[in-house]
Formats: sequence, structure tokens, C-alpha cells
Amino acid sequence: MTTAVEPSFTLKVPHGEDRERRVCDTCGFIDYVNPRIVVGALAVFSEAGAPFGPGAAPLEQVKFLLCRRAIQPRRGFWTLPAGFMEEGETIAEATRREAREEAEAELELDALLALYDVSGRSQVQIMHRARLAKPEFDAGVESLEVALFGWDEIPWRQLAFYSVSWALHDFVESREQAVFAPFRNPPTHDWRLPAGL
Amino acid sequence: MTTAVEPSFTLKVPHGEDRERRVCDTCGFIDYVNPRIVVGALAVFSEAGAPFGPGAAPLEQVKFLLCRRAIQPRRGFWTLPAGFMEEGETIAEATRREAREEAEAELELDALLALYDVSGRSQVQIMHRARLAKPEFDAGVESLEVALFGWDEIPWRQLAFYSVSWALHDFVESREQAVFAPFRNPPTHDWRLPAGL
Repeated sequence: MTTAVEPSFTLKVPHGEDRERRVCDTCGFIDYVNPRIVVGALAVFSEAGAPFGPGAAPLEQVKFLLCRRAIQPRRGFWTLPAGFMEEGETIAEATRREAREEAEAELELDALLALYDVSGRSQVQIMHRARLAKPEFDAGVESLEVALFGWDEIPWRQLAFYSVSWALHDFVESREQAVFAPFRNPPTHDWRLPAGL
Repeated sequence: MTTAVEPSFTLKVPHGEDRERRVCDTCGFIDYVNPRIVVGALAVFSEAGAPFGPGAAPLEQVKFLLCRRAIQPRRGFWTLPAGFMEEGETIAEATRREAREEAEAELELDALLALYDVSGRSQVQIMHRARLAKPEFDAGVESLEVALFGWDEIPWRQLAFYSVSWALHDFVESREQAVFAPFRNPPTHDWRLPAGL
């Protein structure tokens, strides 16, 4: 369906508020925009015992599930199965849905691995440690390909986002622990620095 | 400013998507709605040593900062300083801003206390443990009053939301620990159960 009127908004401070919002020029609708939640999983598989926790298999036995993005931004680069949480979902439901959509994988969620601020893009990223019970996966519609990588095979120079690298390293740092405080942004990373830093 | 046209939306599945969105009848604008992030603090004060962490003062020495709501929903009931995260903020910035707005209090944030799903209201709640350096606070514009309560003085029957009670109990359970995994919803609480349960 097309309409005769095009969407058109102006930034204004609505009555009784203290900050600018996008207000529709045609009908006065206020477009409240809040930070969005990205949920994702650091999903691993091991044939040789538990991939994490006390007594876990050696790191060389652990494979990491990554997806090569079929969509912008960062098409062609590798990422974790992750995406925007939708209305009415729990964090766990949204995380498992994204893994199904992007990697056709069924995950067993474990501890909260990390809570990252990406304030420059108004995102909060909620990352869980997860287990792939079987090495069964395939490229979903938003992925060009999906694969399991050993630690030494990870395409570090072709990762889509900083936070993919953070999550991989945070996983290794906490891998043998059952209980730990979730990781936050590395202290040198203020996301309001210019892009490219 | 008023406009001749009133806001009017219809639920439709936009082209290329897999779920219904609110689409403007006049201009076709798609109102993407995502879960919202509530940030809050379990803020405590103690005159007799550290209020939490290893070697903390006894619980009887710890006072809890609560605000009585001046706005709906749950006007007149007690809550933690908390509110919706805004665009471009970090979690820490938003948490401290809410404590200033609702309680005119300056908080020193500590560990992530809890990550709660309130999927029935499409919220994720991110709660931090926090210290009030001085017992200085006042009712902000969204609060009728603000006060410090000892554990035995907390108005349990007048709390605004379930999650206020959860956070208070989760704080006590983890109080003497420096490092812990954040708490999640109690297992008996599925937020899609009918209201009142």
C-alpha cells in the first residue's frame, strides 16, 4: 500500500517533557525511541567433554559458532548469532530465536557472559554463554554461511563488530568458571569515540 | 501545536518482514516497537562500615533508599530509583540519572545485581548494587517522598512492583560477596501469567 502523504518528522520538546523527540508534522504522533536490546550467544561445541565450566575440555577441543552476515551493516563479515529482541519475548527466548533464524541451531543457554554498552548506536548487548548440543546448523536467511571454528581458526580480521571479539575473549577468560560476574565494555572502549578507533 | 489529522495506526505485516507492526494510515510510517530497558539501583547507606562486600557491616546497619511514586502506574507505592534508559546513554549514566531525577541522590555504582525479564510489559530491567556516599537525597518531581529504611522497616505491603521485592532479597542474598552472577527472575514468576498472581 502507498499513501499520498510521506512520513515527515521534526525534532521538538513535547509538552511536559525535558528532551527532544521526533514529532510527526502531519498528525502530531510522538516517535519515542529508546535504546534497543541486542541479544546474542557465544555458542560452542565440543566432542571431547564439556566446552566450559569446571573440568572443561582443553580449549583446543572447543569450536565456536560464527555466522557470516548476509545483510548490512558489515555484510560478509563474521558475527555471533545475535539480533534485536522483540516485543513480548524473554531474553532467553529471543536469544534462542536469533540462533534459529541466523544459524538454524538449537542452543542450550548457560550463564550471562556479558552486558555491553554500545551507546553510540543506542544499543545494549546481552550475551549468553551457550552450548550446541549437536554440530547441527545451517545458514539462515540473514547469513551467507555458518561454521564452527577452533580458537586458532577464528577469522579475527573479518569479525563484524568489536563486541564479537570482546565476547570471544571474555568467554575464554571465564571459561572454566561456573559462576562469574558478567563482563562489561573493555575500559579503553568508549563507544562515542569516532568510528574506526 | 495541534494538527488537523489525528494519529491513526493499523497492524500490518510490512513487506519483507515476518511479524505485524503498527503502520500509519496516513503516511505509511512503520512504528517499530522494541522492548524497553528499565535501569535501576538497589542503593544503600551505612554509617557503620561498608554496606556490602566481604566484611560488610551487619544488615541491621544498612539502610535502603526507596522512593514513593508520584506518577502512575502504582502512584503512592514505594519503588527503587529506576526508569527508562534514553537514547545515547550508557547503562551506568542512565542509572545515575534516574537516581538524581527521582531521589536527588548521587550513587556510586557497584556490581550488576540482577537482570529481570518483564516480558508481559516488554521490559528488561537492569539493576545495579549501589552505594549512597552520604545520606543526602530529596523527592524529585516523580516522587512523593524519598526515604532510607532499615531492612525491618521496609514497607513490604506497599511496594510498587514485584521486582522491587526481588531486588531487595537478591541484594541480601549476595550482600557479602564481591563477585557473583546477577540474579534473574524467580523461577515461579512467569510474567505472562494473569496480573495479580
